[in-house]
Amino acid sequence: MNLSRIALSRHTCKAYDPDRKIPSGQIDQLKTLLRFAPSSVNSQPWHFIIAAGKEGKERIARAASEGAYANNGAKILNASHVVVLCARTSLDDAYIAELLAQEAADGRLPTTEAREAQNRGRNYYANLHREAGDTRCWMEKQVYLALGTLLFGAAALDIDATPIEGFDPLKLDEVLGLPAQGLKSVVLAALGYRGKDDFNASLPKSRLPADRVISEL
Amino acid sequence: MNLSRIALSRHTCKAYDPDRKIPSGQIDQLKTLLRFAPSSVNSQPWHFIIAAGKEGKERIARAASEGAYANNGAKILNASHVVVLCARTSLDDAYIAELLAQEAADGRLPTTEAREAQNRGRNYYANLHREAGDTRCWMEKQVYLALGTLLFGAAALDIDATPIEGFDPLKLDEVLGLPAQGLKSVVLAALGYRGKDDFNASLPKSRLPADRVISEL
Repeated sequence: MNLSRIALSRHTCKAYDPDRKIPSGQIDQLKTLLRFAPSSVNSQPWHFIIAAGKEGKERIARAASEGAYANNGAKILNASHVVVLCARTSLDDAYIAELLAQEAADGRLPTTEAREAQNRGRNYYANLHREAGDTRCWMEKQVYLALGTLLFGAAALDIDATPIEGFDPLKLDEVLGLPAQGLKSVVLAALGYRGKDDFNASLPKSRLPADRVISEL
Repeated sequence: MNLSRIALSRHTCKAYDPDRKIPSGQIDQLKTLLRFAPSSVNSQPWHFIIAAGKEGKERIARAASEGAYANNGAKILNASHVVVLCARTSLDDAYIAELLAQEAADGRLPTTEAREAQNRGRNYYANLHREAGDTRCWMEKQVYLALGTLLFGAAALDIDATPIEGFDPLKLDEVLGLPAQGLKSVVLAALGYRGKDDFNASLPKSRLPADRVISEL
């Protein structure tokens, strides 16, 4: 696999073909990517909501119908699938206990010592961020790590994608009832296949020169 | 390419074989992934510092020599390459102008209207985050998007990797002289090949059940 080819050939999709659907086997692969994305101390501080049908996409698009966000509505409606990447609103003791129980059930903690060390380590970082007051940002960064994984995976499968920050997150949280689930929307990813009217497909990519953003130590 | 296989087979590396080096052609691919990672409004609010030699890795390891971070020092020293993923300390007007000039030079803005619309759009989001006071978090999230891209790319090339938040960022910033460059360290990625002593290689992966972290709308 030539990763450079994938990186250079993907173009943020600006207009989707509403008639093309991503095969379910590929959606399953992308779900696996999201679920198995790494996160700090295996905190998995996220939830991913996937809309494939008209009604689900219309609900999401209600948060991208006005002002600066209005031109994202059509992308959401015409994409094959839309993923709402959410963060938890807290990383509380109950969730931390749930993570530990899952790791024990999965066979990662064969001894009492291993279990205690894992719990201690995770709580160390959770407390560090509680004390710094940046738990929310810490969790949202993990969500972006998953987003990066998802977007690159989509490109590797020749699926077009659009990461979308341009929506009203409070509106979307309300529409999807996220606060009651202890979640908040962070970023969207539209996935599908570009239409003939996607002006971005033929524009060259642009990035700062390599020596401006990469240096060797 | 089977993405699920890549996602399920990667295990965070806990101990590297110090004698194995990543081929330079693959490092070039990973650099391309980093440089061409997507970012909100193409803001590229990042810089990536790559250490392959002993001296460079020793400098980075000075920020992971004590307390809870001490066991990350050996990973940094024994990995083939270590990437310091940095965020900019500000997204100022000069940098925004530089991005626009680069896009124009790359041929993305063929008309005055396109140029003005792009500048307006990027400033809209930059101002939104300035007003919300979360520019730093916004930029760091883009860095994590690049991290997710890098980690998945490494796995696709059968390169072992360790994302590392466990280091002293202020110490590392000082050691590398980052503040004077308008940068701050955000997260590290060690890359290389696991040694025989990597206990994590044989442990099962653990994640919450699919229906706990993914739902359909």
